[in-house]
Amino acid sequence: MNKYIYSFGGGQADGSKDMKSLLGGKGANLAEMTNIGLPVPAGFTISTEVCKYYYENSNTYPPELEKEIDSALRALEETSGKKFGDARNPLLVSVRSGAAVSMPGMMDTVLNLGLNEETVAALAAGIGNDRFAWDAYRRFIQMFGNVVEGIEYQKFEHILETIKKERGVEQDTRLTAQDLKTITLSYKELYKNEKNEEFPTDPKIQLQRSIHAVFGSWNNERAIKYRQINKVDESQVFGTAVNVQAMVFGNMGDDSGTGVAFTRNPSTGEGGVFGEYLMNAQGEDVVAGIRTPKPITALKDDNSQVYEQLISIFDILEKHYKDMQDVEFTIENGTLYILQTRNGKRTGPAAVRIAVEMVEEGLIDEKNGLLKVQPEQLDQLLHPMIDPAQKKNFTKLAEGLPASPGAVSGKVVFNAIDAVEQADTGEKVILVRAETSPEDIAGMHASQGILTARGGMTSHAAVVARGMGKCCVAGCGEIVVSEADKTFRVGDKVIAEGDIVTLDGSAGEVYLDHIPTIKPTVSGNFAKLMEWADKYRQLGVRTNADTPADAQVARDYGAEGIGLCRTEHMFFEEDRIFAVRQMIVSETKEQREAALAKIFPMQKSDFKALFSIMAGLPVKIRLLDPPLHEFLPKEKRDIVALAREMGITTQKLEEKIEQLHEFNPMMGHRGCRLGITFPEIYQMQVKAIIQAACELKKEQDMEIVPEIMIPLVGDINEYKIMQKYLEPVIKQTMKDNDVELEYEMGTMIEIPRAALTADEIAKEAEFFSFGTNDLTQMTFGFSRDDSGSFLKQYVNEKILPEDPFQSVDQVGVGKLMNMTVDMGRKVRPGMHIGICGEQGGDPKTIHFCHQIGLTYVSCSPYRVPIARLAAAQAALES
Amino acid sequence: MNKYIYSFGGGQADGSKDMKSLLGGKGANLAEMTNIGLPVPAGFTISTEVCKYYYENSNTYPPELEKEIDSALRALEETSGKKFGDARNPLLVSVRSGAAVSMPGMMDTVLNLGLNEETVAALAAGIGNDRFAWDAYRRFIQMFGNVVEGIEYQKFEHILETIKKERGVEQDTRLTAQDLKTITLSYKELYKNEKNEEFPTDPKIQLQRSIHAVFGSWNNERAIKYRQINKVDESQVFGTAVNVQAMVFGNMGDDSGTGVAFTRNPSTGEGGVFGEYLMNAQGEDVVAGIRTPKPITALKDDNSQVYEQLISIFDILEKHYKDMQDVEFTIENGTLYILQTRNGKRTGPAAVRIAVEMVEEGLIDEKNGLLKVQPEQLDQLLHPMIDPAQKKNFTKLAEGLPASPGAVSGKVVFNAIDAVEQADTGEKVILVRAETSPEDIAGMHASQGILTARGGMTSHAAVVARGMGKCCVAGCGEIVVSEADKTFRVGDKVIAEGDIVTLDGSAGEVYLDHIPTIKPTVSGNFAKLMEWADKYRQLGVRTNADTPADAQVARDYGAEGIGLCRTEHMFFEEDRIFAVRQMIVSETKEQREAALAKIFPMQKSDFKALFSIMAGLPVKIRLLDPPLHEFLPKEKRDIVALAREMGITTQKLEEKIEQLHEFNPMMGHRGCRLGITFPEIYQMQVKAIIQAACELKKEQDMEIVPEIMIPLVGDINEYKIMQKYLEPVIKQTMKDNDVELEYEMGTMIEIPRAALTADEIAKEAEFFSFGTNDLTQMTFGFSRDDSGSFLKQYVNEKILPEDPFQSVDQVGVGKLMNMTVDMGRKVRPGMHIGICGEQGGDPKTIHFCHQIGLTYVSCSPYRVPIARLAAAQAALES
Repeated sequence: MNKYIYSFGGGQADGSKDMKSLLGGKGANLAEMTNIGLPVPAGFTISTEVCKYYYENSNTYPPELEKEIDSALRALEETSGKKFGDARNPLLVSVRSGAAVSMPGMMDTVLNLGLNEETVAALAAGIGNDRFAWDAYRRFIQMFGNVVEGIEYQKFEHILETIKKERGVEQDTRLTAQDLKTITLSYKELYKNEKNEEFPTDPKIQLQRSIHAVFGSWNNERAIKYRQINKVDESQVFGTAVNVQAMVFGNMGDDSGTGVAFTRNPSTGEGGVFGEYLMNAQGEDVVAGIRTPKPITALKDDNSQVYEQLISIFDILEKHYKDMQDVEFTIENGTLYILQTRNGKRTGPAAVRIAVEMVEEGLIDEKNGLLKVQPEQLDQLLHPMIDPAQKKNFTKLAEGLPASPGAVSGKVVFNAIDAVEQADTGEKVILVRAETSPEDIAGMHASQGILTARGGMTSHAAVVARGMGKCCVAGCGEIVVSEADKTFRVGDKVIAEGDIVTLDGSAGEVYLDHIPTIKPTVSGNFAKLMEWADKYRQLGVRTNADTPADAQVARDYGAEGIGLCRTEHMFFEEDRIFAVRQMIVSETKEQREAALAKIFPMQKSDFKALFSIMAGLPVKIRLLDPPLHEFLPKEKRDIVALAREMGITTQKLEEKIEQLHEFNPMMGHRGCRLGITFPEIYQMQVKAIIQAACELKKEQDMEIVPEIMIPLVGDINEYKIMQKYLEPVIKQTMKDNDVELEYEMGTMIEIPRAALTADEIAKEAEFFSFGTNDLTQMTFGFSRDDSGSFLKQYVNEKILPEDPFQSVDQVGVGKLMNMTVDMGRKVRPGMHIGICGEQGGDPKTIHFCHQIGLTYVSCSPYRVPIARLAAAQAALES
Repeated sequence: MNKYIYSFGGGQADGSKDMKSLLGGKGANLAEMTNIGLPVPAGFTISTEVCKYYYENSNTYPPELEKEIDSALRALEETSGKKFGDARNPLLVSVRSGAAVSMPGMMDTVLNLGLNEETVAALAAGIGNDRFAWDAYRRFIQMFGNVVEGIEYQKFEHILETIKKERGVEQDTRLTAQDLKTITLSYKELYKNEKNEEFPTDPKIQLQRSIHAVFGSWNNERAIKYRQINKVDESQVFGTAVNVQAMVFGNMGDDSGTGVAFTRNPSTGEGGVFGEYLMNAQGEDVVAGIRTPKPITALKDDNSQVYEQLISIFDILEKHYKDMQDVEFTIENGTLYILQTRNGKRTGPAAVRIAVEMVEEGLIDEKNGLLKVQPEQLDQLLHPMIDPAQKKNFTKLAEGLPASPGAVSGKVVFNAIDAVEQADTGEKVILVRAETSPEDIAGMHASQGILTARGGMTSHAAVVARGMGKCCVAGCGEIVVSEADKTFRVGDKVIAEGDIVTLDGSAGEVYLDHIPTIKPTVSGNFAKLMEWADKYRQLGVRTNADTPADAQVARDYGAEGIGLCRTEHMFFEEDRIFAVRQMIVSETKEQREAALAKIFPMQKSDFKALFSIMAGLPVKIRLLDPPLHEFLPKEKRDIVALAREMGITTQKLEEKIEQLHEFNPMMGHRGCRLGITFPEIYQMQVKAIIQAACELKKEQDMEIVPEIMIPLVGDINEYKIMQKYLEPVIKQTMKDNDVELEYEMGTMIEIPRAALTADEIAKEAEFFSFGTNDLTQMTFGFSRDDSGSFLKQYVNEKILPEDPFQSVDQVGVGKLMNMTVDMGRKVRPGMHIGICGEQGGDPKTIHFCHQIGLTYVSCSPYRVPIARLAAAQAALES
């Protein structure tokens, strides 16, 4: 028989922290904390198996579930000494979701469950506080009505506001027990009108419906969106568990309270507890940012005993979980309860600092330290930061909390819909809100950064922004947001939608206009982490760089060479595009060679500059790849101008353009197909490469081993014909310079047929480099330029798990890659094989590259550290 | 030690007919004929191994070759009783090329070798004929000078013509021995001036150089072109052999002669000897078409004994080789010699008749009969013929010999270069020449048909045209061709370049203007051959047909169903394109559905018509494939007109067009990607298919099993989502009709990723059909629309053996196909898998499809019989 329910309480639990996929993160940790003796309110967890069953069986439950719930309830009654629905000592419970992956605020929660006319009286009598009991009851009806039965939240709020107005009070706390009773009655009436039934009084029915609502909330819009954004693979982690737990109250009076704390600073990683609390409040009050909470250290003064207990529990939790914890707690009449612990979300800089310091503290070893940082998080450490030298030239608008670091500029928008719409058109936007709520998730994701007027460091905005790695300034009390007018005010300054601001999330500052940024360096903890990564990784990490500037950045970030230098970008530069165009419109080989002779010295100096920066590290140069028409103008007036400049008729130039026009240029006359029809182009390029290397050897005694890469090979004969054309030029250039150079010649693998015949090609080619952009295009038959019209839908509807242009499709493209490696190395054992498509900087792709035994990955300069870490993790995890 | 030379003569030979690849076709057959006792002049063959050695070792020979030639010469001297270079009884030899595949006239030949001042005298004395001896000598010098030493042919001709003018004679035969001596001297002088040496007198040097020339001629331009056109795979058949053979002379007087004959009619296949001869002539005189020869039956009168002997030899040869033979013979002073036999080239109709009649005569069995016809040859039987009803409305210009059947129309051109140039622009041309020569090959290939003024049924034009399967009217003496003016005259009619004529190669008639043609039927021998083919083939043969007309043709030709019905062609029809465009510019799903509702009844009746014709045979329908922009106009004025017609602004229509524009439409928003974004389109199509089948079942009790094919699937999830959208529509339509139908749903395999994940896709898809057009595009990264700029060069330079859009690339694309079949059938044993790309009608591709175990091939209607035969041959050969 299946076991669907796992109880915890009274110092022992059925579950443990290793049962996350069954019990969800929250449930597993509640069990674990119970087992290690921490004060956790008793309760039970309905496993994710039930959720699976629910969705696989048209929203029904396993038949034995009801009995299991009953017996779990009885056990809970025993542990707590209270009874569900009892008229004297009633048991109240919370019903909370909890999936295997943390999805904060995405699914439903119901609190104070078990209240009705009878039990509310018992509660009031028991604690001698009528007002508290009726407040709990009206909150329960509001939550149940909204969350479980779908009655609009605003309708409840309207009743509350009406009574407050009638009573002439502003704060809820000023309402009397009688007021709350009146509100409760009105709520019930509202409920009856909306649902055509009385508000359910039977706690069992309340519980059944609440459980049902929580399971249903797995597939609400917000939750689906969250999983999309966070790329949650539902085939791996499906469904939520439901946690039913005895209520404890932080709002029973001044010796009660509730709080949230991180065992280390989640924004900077600094050691020491970091958190906030509110006395006489429920948990929602802290995270929703409605009242501004006190820092955790202030608790020492409010209740030093509880504070000491809490600090020691934090210490126990961090040592037990070996990670920074995000803890929720409640103090009920002076007694501390821990309601939740989980690994805390953190910014990139915090992740690095925490990982390195935990290693230094001896809590974890280097390997585990490396695994604690998600490679993508490093992006935040590499992103530009505000240039300190420039700051003084700009107007500082306001200062708030440094909720999530980074420096971003953009146009302000005032709601999530505008944020998404404008971002879709390519606009960079900053989302400004009084406070954020789970409905804003998509808008936050679409924004460069978030600015809120209210809420602390653990407010919704701050937590979510850090999770997303987005810059955020929170609790910026100086600003007054008018969502209706789409403006915000700071003193007498009014900032309207579309105005540009810059946020400095590390300093918590807001500036008017766009402030220039600078590139951060790799130092301190970051450098240490990179050092460890290099120690454990097996994959090499190179960079894709076409310019000396890019090459320099990549070297600073630890690139071990250039994996792809695209020579065509050099062709576009202003001082040479004219000669390039002359070459293209040439009628004869002689004319073409004359034009190429003008380009030659420029190409040579390009290569010389690149080689110099890489100072002996390998540099892989891809010969001209794009179709020639890309170099010619498209607009009539540009054509006229060019024709005049070139001294040919417009008509002739237009004819040439027409002649070069292609229906599907991606599969047209490009790559080595150009090299075969116009060998003189590649011959010029190869000569420039070898000449540059020869000169550096003579002038600076610098040993360069150029790697010459032929693009778009699909058949060994294409490669052979290129060898025939190019090798004599290479030999001759070395001879003319009286220099002997080592060099390598190899090919891109970017055409499916090249992968399918890799054994043949490996007979001649000395290396392979996967051009996964083209390989993905051809393998899927997706043009990257055109797939926008359907690819988004494909990813949203999970037809494809991910955009294959961002992360290599391991099933299809990966199969070709795997075949290539096997077949290639069979013919040429140990041949070096890399990847230089854009996916080369994607951590998942890097794991895959490690698995299939590639020699190195090559990525854009700013992703080099990410690749180094991902490569290390791949090695450690395999 | 290698054996390089194979002698024959005196009733025995070293070689045999099975040694073609070593001795070439000619050499192997000379050996064979010697062995079976036929009168063959003795000689020896230098094997193709030497040719290989020659090209692999920078044009040098194996060291032992010279000795072997010497000893073969000594043996030849013994057999013939003559001596090489002997002043009394000199041995004269011919030196001829002979490759494993017949390449008539493409390589070099030297005759009368061994003559010099001494031997010419001996020859004259020996036969008592000065004139003959000197004529032989001057011919030898001319041939050696031209062929071996590269002196322009015209220079020799000029000397000859000058003397003829001086002597006032028109025909060579009128020149005296003295005249010929004078010519010989002038020839030698010419030789000395051109080559800076005396004409070589040593027969051994003459022989060495001639052999060298023949080996070199393997790679002359003509020979290379011939091999390209005829797709000779040099990795299989490389190099020519050289045949050195004692000379026999057909021009020794009136009891000498020479001829060429086929053992059956090579044009029609009719039984009985078919050939021509000339008395007192050399072989070149017959084939070059300079003198018009006599039909072979006339030989009975000239020399009945030789005639009888010849007829009996023909009989022996045909029975021995079990095929129609093309025989060259010479009569020297009344003695018959056979100089060559080979399997005769024949037209398609002849091939079919010969194969069927040989089976009926008991000479071969059905299987061998099937193997005797090249599938491509059937094309000639299927090509349109002149509509007899129309003939009378056109002017017959002239009548010639029915040299190669067929009916073609085109613009006349007067030389090979014009033919190639105009054909390259897509023009259909008829090449008109006084007579053709090997230099015309490329022009003949580029033309629709050939018309010559001179030459018989075995003239160059006739033989080559039949080999190519081109329509040809030869020896049309009524026409006078002026190549300089680019006109031809018939009486007082002048036909100029660009005028249109029609040739009827079956009747030997030439008409002015274009005459309509009709489709031939499959009957008689052709039907018999097809019947045998169906008996032995294992592959099914279906057709690609989009219209009832195409479907009818295909059924008449034996198609067993439709393998591909492209529904988009239906969308283009004039009466519905408007609704299609309405659908495309729709802003909402509702608008789109309204437009689709208009298209639905038309689609339904399309399918009903197709199903009716196929009458229960399977019909596979591909849902809409091309991107939507293909249905919208491109030109401004068409856009304006359409916008007005549709009642929308031009700007709006232009915006829609702009929005649908794609950079690489081949890899864009098409196929099932459309089906996913606009499910209502496919739903309409599927409903139309099922509705059509239901109605036929109800109305005519016709059982249709529609096969619904989803295009462009690359991932199983695409297929699943289509199932989800379409299956309910199918079920509902059947329910609405109260009809239960069987149907199948499956997918094209045309995206490499589909092939790579065929096992996944086979879990759901009930059938596969290879779309080898797209699969080839994606696997190679070649856009078919754009690859013209390099693909020709690729094939010419042998980078690729063939155009992969004509014949499936077995190495790359074939590997994916093979994987697909293996993986697909592993999951779904016995699943039916076809091919519907254009290569499906290519015999080589059909062989491949048989090998990898496909269920059927589908091809255009006119290729159905070709596919049936190719499938049978594939089965017989495996």
